[in-house]
Amino acid sequence: MPSHDPAALRTYSYLGPRGTFTEAALAQVPDATGQNWRSVNSVPEALADVTSGVSDGAVIAVENSIDGGVSAAQDALATTPGLRIVGEYLVAVDFSLVARKGTRLEDVRVINGHPVAYAQSRIWIDANLPGHGHIPATSNVAAAANLLENELADAAIAPPSITEHYDLDVLAEHIGDNRNAVTRFALVTRDRRIPEPTGADKTSLVAELPVDQPGALLDMLEQFSTRGVNMTMIQSRPIGDALGRYRFVIDLDGHIRDERVADALMGVHRFSPHVRFLGSYPRADKKPIRFDPRYDDDVYIEARDWLRGLISSEPGADD
Amino acid sequence: MPSHDPAALRTYSYLGPRGTFTEAALAQVPDATGQNWRSVNSVPEALADVTSGVSDGAVIAVENSIDGGVSAAQDALATTPGLRIVGEYLVAVDFSLVARKGTRLEDVRVINGHPVAYAQSRIWIDANLPGHGHIPATSNVAAAANLLENELADAAIAPPSITEHYDLDVLAEHIGDNRNAVTRFALVTRDRRIPEPTGADKTSLVAELPVDQPGALLDMLEQFSTRGVNMTMIQSRPIGDALGRYRFVIDLDGHIRDERVADALMGVHRFSPHVRFLGSYPRADKKPIRFDPRYDDDVYIEARDWLRGLISSEPGADD
Amino acid sequence: MPSHDPAALRTYSYLGPRGTFTEAALAQVPDATGQNWRSVNSVPEALADVTSGVSDGAVIAVENSIDGGVSAAQDALATTPGLRIVGEYLVAVDFSLVARKGTRLEDVRVINGHPVAYAQSRIWIDANLPGHGHIPATSNVAAAANLLENELADAAIAPPSITEHYDLDVLAEHIGDNRNAVTRFALVTRDRRIPEPTGADKTSLVAELPVDQPGALLDMLEQFSTRGVNMTMIQSRPIGDALGRYRFVIDLDGHIRDERVADALMGVHRFSPHVRFLGSYPRADKKPIRFDPRYDDDVYIEARDWLRGLISSEPGADD
Amino acid sequence: MPSHDPAALRTYSYLGPRGTFTEAALAQVPDATGQNWRSVNSVPEALADVTSGVSDGAVIAVENSIDGGVSAAQDALATTPGLRIVGEYLVAVDFSLVARKGTRLEDVRVINGHPVAYAQSRIWIDANLPGHGHIPATSNVAAAANLLENELADAAIAPPSITEHYDLDVLAEHIGDNRNAVTRFALVTRDRRIPEPTGADKTSLVAELPVDQPGALLDMLEQFSTRGVNMTMIQSRPIGDALGRYRFVIDLDGHIRDERVADALMGVHRFSPHVRFLGSYPRADKKPIRFDPRYDDDVYIEARDWLRGLISSEPGADD
Repeated sequence: MPSHDPAALRTYSYLGPRGTFTEAALAQVPDATGQNWRSVNSVPEALADVTSGVSDGAVIAVENSIDGGVSAAQDALATTPGLRIVGEYLVAVDFSLVARKGTRLEDVRVINGHPVAYAQSRIWIDANLPGHGHIPATSNVAAAANLLENELADAAIAPPSITEHYDLDVLAEHIGDNRNAVTRFALVTRDRRIPEPTGADKTSLVAELPVDQPGALLDMLEQFSTRGVNMTMIQSRPIGDALGRYRFVIDLDGHIRDERVADALMGVHRFSPHVRFLGSYPRADKKPIRFDPRYDDDVYIEARDWLRGLISSEPGADD
Repeated sequence: MPSHDPAALRTYSYLGPRGTFTEAALAQVPDATGQNWRSVNSVPEALADVTSGVSDGAVIAVENSIDGGVSAAQDALATTPGLRIVGEYLVAVDFSLVARKGTRLEDVRVINGHPVAYAQSRIWIDANLPGHGHIPATSNVAAAANLLENELADAAIAPPSITEHYDLDVLAEHIGDNRNAVTRFALVTRDRRIPEPTGADKTSLVAELPVDQPGALLDMLEQFSTRGVNMTMIQSRPIGDALGRYRFVIDLDGHIRDERVADALMGVHRFSPHVRFLGSYPRADKKPIRFDPRYDDDVYIEARDWLRGLISSEPGADD
Repeated sequence: MPSHDPAALRTYSYLGPRGTFTEAALAQVPDATGQNWRSVNSVPEALADVTSGVSDGAVIAVENSIDGGVSAAQDALATTPGLRIVGEYLVAVDFSLVARKGTRLEDVRVINGHPVAYAQSRIWIDANLPGHGHIPATSNVAAAANLLENELADAAIAPPSITEHYDLDVLAEHIGDNRNAVTRFALVTRDRRIPEPTGADKTSLVAELPVDQPGALLDMLEQFSTRGVNMTMIQSRPIGDALGRYRFVIDLDGHIRDERVADALMGVHRFSPHVRFLGSYPRADKKPIRFDPRYDDDVYIEARDWLRGLISSEPGADD
Repeated sequence: MPSHDPAALRTYSYLGPRGTFTEAALAQVPDATGQNWRSVNSVPEALADVTSGVSDGAVIAVENSIDGGVSAAQDALATTPGLRIVGEYLVAVDFSLVARKGTRLEDVRVINGHPVAYAQSRIWIDANLPGHGHIPATSNVAAAANLLENELADAAIAPPSITEHYDLDVLAEHIGDNRNAVTRFALVTRDRRIPEPTGADKTSLVAELPVDQPGALLDMLEQFSTRGVNMTMIQSRPIGDALGRYRFVIDLDGHIRDERVADALMGVHRFSPHVRFLGSYPRADKKPIRFDPRYDDDVYIEARDWLRGLISSEPGADD
């Protein structure tokens, strides 16, 4: 259990309350063990804590989240200056249907649950509870907690760990449509020191495209492909000032200290009217990055030396 | 006002209740005037109505929605066979803060509203109602309606038209952060007949990328660029079977009967393990498509004739 | 030995006189056996014979020729309407130093030889005949024949087969710098029937680039790469109307009846202000073409059927 | 007239004898005025003079030459270490038909001339001298000179300036097929100092492609296009070790000290198994290079500073 003594401890904000998938992600952060964990109500709030200095770090869902908020997280990262991702963590997504003590499945008429969790459990719910009603909750943990506060709903969709925190019965386990579902979380800080390269790193950035330039997305992606840099994720997000204008949230294989990644970042910086580096950090799965040897650091260094030799007129540079 | 006589009328499903932005979009559909309008609780429900034959059409938000559900809409379109987009409509997004008769702004402690609408009105709300609480609603209209049913909230975020349907006071107008916000809606049917080309058309598709092929996204986008076809939107959506696998929802300038669009669609079909054509339909803004004359239909027809001449050994084909 | 009876026989023009590498290529053409072989003095003359109907076919060097004339051949193919390549043949390039009977190597002061053959034998010649002089000849066979007509030169660079035709001594064999040198020849006709596909075919074309369009060459090459069509040769040749304007002579893997090649040819036709199809014909090395299965004919046919189904509104096309 | 005093003078080799187009190019080199001009018999000889130190510079034809030898020049530049291009010069190509004093056009039976000049004057010659014979010469000046030495030919194809050096009659002027023909010459040295940027510069290089990598040419050209560097010439030349293996001689707009050119050169160096920088030098036509402002030096410097700021963890770098 994390300590909650605020004195001299570091503080980490997370989408609470206790029992959320986000808290499960925070529990994976080694530096957070025994520190102050601060439960907040939304991703923007968690990031605001970091920006303002209330917290030292925040854990937020950044991909395929069930707790919701991924788009919000990406938009917040894209627009909030000074934030950096320093780690990523994976949490398997799994749902139980829980109810007040003594409730039977056949008694359930109304279900409480976050809209995303509800949507992702529809196959089981529709098959087992035809004719049920749904009340949306701000989080699945809130849905479960509400069962003990009022009788608006008969059951709640919640993470399996919920019974560690609330005195509820489990009516059914593993009710999610997709048994392999995983949510990816990021640890965000305002510390500008970049974690050391490990050989199994990821780099995240946000870039806007030049206006009114057909093929601009293609041009931007070529900045990566011509340097042998692999993209693991791309998300377009509306910039919000007009329909049809997007920024792209991109994850790359490799670390900013890898020559090919640094060169690609410079390429995007020259190209994009607005680009933000979100961080280089170890991959959650610790899989070493593989890339064509022709994009090795040595090849970059050799090319730079060759160019310097040419420009300085040293003999032998290209003979 | 739409008629609600179900006899011999066509039925259109929309995310209700009455007063939503989605209803405002449906009001723009000429064929829907005087027909049966069916209010439903979610985008999947609206699409299920079309698939099952309960409705003839459904209007759903597909981009930058405030009513929420855009990701859900894109996922549903990507995975539900037999659906086609036959029209698009734009609705300006505008919010009022409404309350029960007699409420003063300074009395407002708790606000009800859809989480997206709430997020998009935070600047005004934080400035004018510091210390307020927020209760999430399934829709902004529901938030407004709830004011008359219980006293959980003091005010609601709602579309300006809400006062046509509910007896409420307007405490503030235009409280959204972005004055130019617009939501794009699609009219979806199961009719496979494609609307005639108008010269100002859009084509929508969903395509998956081949697995484990670096540069695959680049290759797919080149299918468009080598035919001079402009992309107006691209959205990546996780396929859901594993982290890191995406499908792309894409809008193109032009109609499937335009040679360059047809050729690009065939190129994507050859390339992608799974591609779905979602429809060709008139643009909401009716702006004629502009493209390089070297991608004109005539150029395609001429190239095809040239090739046929060569293969059939007709004299003169390339002289 | 080819027959030289002109009655009712087909006529083939080649760069003569007898004994040239070009004649060795002609000897590989099955249909030419026992037909009329017509020795001419230049590649343009050989092609003019075909155009005018004097000959049924002509064999010309098209790559890495020692007899010279490759640029001329490519320019002639690019600009002469009505010509088609129907076959290709390879001849190993090998040189002997020959002289009048009784000449000793140490007596050689002046060498006659085609400038290209001379240039390609310089290593051996400079090592063994320092201080020699060189007289250029129109062909190596002419150089050898001249030895018997006048005493301007003491020795000649010639193909090994020269001693079958002329009574000369061989002073040295294999004097070429590169032991693996090979020249590629094309059989050119004015017959517009394209040889049947064999699975090991090559397609040749000539294309100009649009004027003043940066990246135009890249755009043209993408016409091939987006269809998985491999280029085996590209030669730029000045168009001749102004410095900096080029046409490109290109060889592709595959046959015009292969869907991917046909599609790429149409792509180039749409793109290029001037493109000429020079022919599809069996490769000299008979190596079957390998390509990514995603560019198979079936994949093209399937894509076309899919598109037709969509446009004709047939049910099931993309479900 | 150039001085021929060898003492303390610089020496420039050129394809002679006096009167060639190459000499006309040398006459445009300011530094060569009053220096030692050394006439040689071939382009390789001229370059060997530079390599060995016999000459300080050599002028050679590099594009669209009538004196011949362009392929030889490109191959020599590609394979001779230590050579650099430091200037380029243009000479208009123009031919006269000249003969011994008193010869009339109707008397001409046999024409002497370099094969390329002969080929480029065929329209006029065939129209005015049907049934003529052709004797190839090593150069057009040699052809003219031969008229005074023997009677093998009745007339010669020669540059207009030939009558300044030889006592011959002009039978016809401007007999070339193309009135706009121009040859481009390069001044080659072994001095490794690169001429200062002028804003109207050209950069030449030779690069081989990686073996057996489909799309390799496309990949190489993208090294230029992704940096906004325009190619003004590309020539493929067989490497000579096997059919189908090419090196590419490429001219780029800009100077190696331009950031975008330097970056593209490094990109090619990383990509190509063998690349040689041939030089950056002022364009003959002195036309300033135009390029997209997003590839300006400042943009490169800014991107580099941004990257350095990120890596050094300085605050503010991307805020």
